[in-house]
Amino acid sequence: MGILDQFFISPETASKGDYTIATYLVEVPPATDINVFAAALAVEQTTGTWVQVPEETAEIRKKYCGKVVSVLEVPAYEFELPKGVESRSFVLQVAYPEVNFGSQIPMLLSTVIGNISMCGRLKLLDLKFSDYFMKGFKGPKFGVEGVRKILGVQGRPLLNNMIKPCTGYTPEVGAKLFYQAALGGVDIIKDDELIADPPFCPMAKRVELYMKAEEKVFRETGEHTLFTVNVTNNATEAIRNAKNAVKMGVNAVMLNFLTAGYSVLQSLADDPEINVPILAHLDFAGVLYESHYSGLSSHLVLGKLARLAGADIVVYPSPYGKFNFFREKHMLIANALTCEFGSIKRSFPMPGGGINNGNVHSVVEDLGIDCIIGCGGAIHGHPMGPTLGAKAMRQVIDAAVKGVPYAKMADSSPEVKAAYDLWGDTKGRQVKLFDLK
Amino acid sequence: MGILDQFFISPETASKGDYTIATYLVEVPPATDINVFAAALAVEQTTGTWVQVPEETAEIRKKYCGKVVSVLEVPAYEFELPKGVESRSFVLQVAYPEVNFGSQIPMLLSTVIGNISMCGRLKLLDLKFSDYFMKGFKGPKFGVEGVRKILGVQGRPLLNNMIKPCTGYTPEVGAKLFYQAALGGVDIIKDDELIADPPFCPMAKRVELYMKAEEKVFRETGEHTLFTVNVTNNATEAIRNAKNAVKMGVNAVMLNFLTAGYSVLQSLADDPEINVPILAHLDFAGVLYESHYSGLSSHLVLGKLARLAGADIVVYPSPYGKFNFFREKHMLIANALTCEFGSIKRSFPMPGGGINNGNVHSVVEDLGIDCIIGCGGAIHGHPMGPTLGAKAMRQVIDAAVKGVPYAKMADSSPEVKAAYDLWGDTKGRQVKLFDLK
Repeated sequence: MGILDQFFISPETASKGDYTIATYLVEVPPATDINVFAAALAVEQTTGTWVQVPEETAEIRKKYCGKVVSVLEVPAYEFELPKGVESRSFVLQVAYPEVNFGSQIPMLLSTVIGNISMCGRLKLLDLKFSDYFMKGFKGPKFGVEGVRKILGVQGRPLLNNMIKPCTGYTPEVGAKLFYQAALGGVDIIKDDELIADPPFCPMAKRVELYMKAEEKVFRETGEHTLFTVNVTNNATEAIRNAKNAVKMGVNAVMLNFLTAGYSVLQSLADDPEINVPILAHLDFAGVLYESHYSGLSSHLVLGKLARLAGADIVVYPSPYGKFNFFREKHMLIANALTCEFGSIKRSFPMPGGGINNGNVHSVVEDLGIDCIIGCGGAIHGHPMGPTLGAKAMRQVIDAAVKGVPYAKMADSSPEVKAAYDLWGDTKGRQVKLFDLK
Repeated sequence: MGILDQFFISPETASKGDYTIATYLVEVPPATDINVFAAALAVEQTTGTWVQVPEETAEIRKKYCGKVVSVLEVPAYEFELPKGVESRSFVLQVAYPEVNFGSQIPMLLSTVIGNISMCGRLKLLDLKFSDYFMKGFKGPKFGVEGVRKILGVQGRPLLNNMIKPCTGYTPEVGAKLFYQAALGGVDIIKDDELIADPPFCPMAKRVELYMKAEEKVFRETGEHTLFTVNVTNNATEAIRNAKNAVKMGVNAVMLNFLTAGYSVLQSLADDPEINVPILAHLDFAGVLYESHYSGLSSHLVLGKLARLAGADIVVYPSPYGKFNFFREKHMLIANALTCEFGSIKRSFPMPGGGINNGNVHSVVEDLGIDCIIGCGGAIHGHPMGPTLGAKAMRQVIDAAVKGVPYAKMADSSPEVKAAYDLWGDTKGRQVKLFDLK
């Protein structure tokens, strides 16, 4: 038996077992024996520590120890290291026995990126789960089909509006903006992530006034609007907030799921009393994914794990708005939210941040109809007001679905033309952020 | 009035108001107008978005908008930028009105490092709170004094042991190791962060058997041992686990607080039913602090915020063990956990990860007596067994407090000598991690 045997497992065997396979990018000094490094990582994150202890028996290591699946050098050198190379990079795969952590995200993260998150240049690129692990998750209660069913909207992307300004206004002002935007055809109105329950705009009062506005709009237009009230707080309070809001008649909730924790998102999703769609907001995500050398990849943070935890709608950075974000990453997140994934429902991808009418065609070309156009300022900052601002967005969405160019649409609609003249055709481009004014 | 006036506030005025002052390190292209950048950041994280909207009135901006406190170039250039400079670095301070987010950590983080976490090179270095904000937090229920009172131990660092191996054993094996370590004089025995409630070692059974072992040891030695059972899971389950464990008689709990979320930690700490000390475990911390260009500094992640959320004991990377960690950072974390901080109790600092007898003097020199020596493998991997392994650690702790050198102590105690001969005097040094064996 070779000395690697007890620490390594073949990809074929790993795929058949109850293992979560984690893929890492690591950068190590040239002299590092990468096989020892990989084995140390697998042992450290399961049974072992810096010294072997008597009760870490061969039997325990066999059943509960992580195993190295693959060690891939990127780029690869032939025979010997070129002079001047100060580090080598590898893609490593490690299979972790899922029986160790069970079907829950906090213990999963503690295992796959827990203490090793502090051991130098190591980034978690991907996770692959077994059926055994997946079976423990319910995922989104509603998902794409469920949200569409509530709204009665098929065949086009949904339109989401964030009330703007983000914070500082009263529930009365908010309700006015809600009414105006919903009247123009917005499907979902979300709180900004920066407002939860401040004394100048209490959550309960928002629910009361906004849902009254929702009813009024429904009577006038026959179209429903979801209000995702931001319930973010400590775990106990967030869960209580959500239950209270549902009792008060809110038809959706939102959570800043990365500052509150995946654990709170899943508790909301798993709670039968909270029988409304959940929107998961991206803020804080950069803390987890932004570094090239540490943390997790963005399609895990905002894609796979958000969906697994039960988000019906996930807001993530649009490559066309105010964030610097690669289009490829946006596509990978959307794919993780909507691909085949056991029996877990699809989550709605909602790329956002500085989206205006000029970006809609780009999003629809990328994602098709099963996405949500997230748009705050372009509705509330529209020169003809929020109602016509929302109408303009709905018209541009329809144009994008039908393949009518934005410029052409602007010719036939004064409200679209007003947006076109103000912000231009920003297709595929980013918006300018800010001027002192 | 200058154009900066509405976006800037003096440090003197900011310190007197109900503001949280966030300090950032940012790196920007040389052509960036840093004043515009700083103002955009302050606006983006409070009232504003990429376009000004009608309801973002001057009144709203005055009361609810973030204000730039200081813009400091590091390093500073005189008059003009040297050729070849590809970026400039600044320390920025922004004052956020606390009325926007209230006294809770998730909304605080959404505000100070939410969407801007995704806007390029920006790291949150520090946070300073007002009395108004602090008043909303209870902090640790027990803290340093409370934990000492329960244990009846004064005048020396406490000794914590992690059961090793980390996972894969039965409750019976765990209880045996618990008994042996506690008999040797360990004050606190914690679960490893990699074990919570696996089928082969259920949480409830561990509580039952370990607390029986605790009673037995107390009858034999007159010394109590805290068992911090790892309750990590989704929010609802973690809270329920903690309540159940307390009902079953456990005398402490632990949480992987960064994978479960600060929000869950605080919910445990605030819950009157969970009337036992809480140990907060560091795993996942590197995801938040490891990058130089993004995320948060380690003394926020593992220091100030952990204490604010109510951790009685915080485990963080020791510079002397298996983590690569600057001694300065270890000192800053410990300081954040124990400095004057309103009426919030002190949390116990517990540097850990590969600590053996040879590192104890370093920790005691750094932190004095109000710290916890966290030691897993050096007890369970001690050549004379866990009981004498624990005794050896207690003797070395006493030696460190009295100023007796480790080598001298080894001469007068066979169990200390056994550790000394095996691992050497590693004072101030790191341990070697792993061999394929």
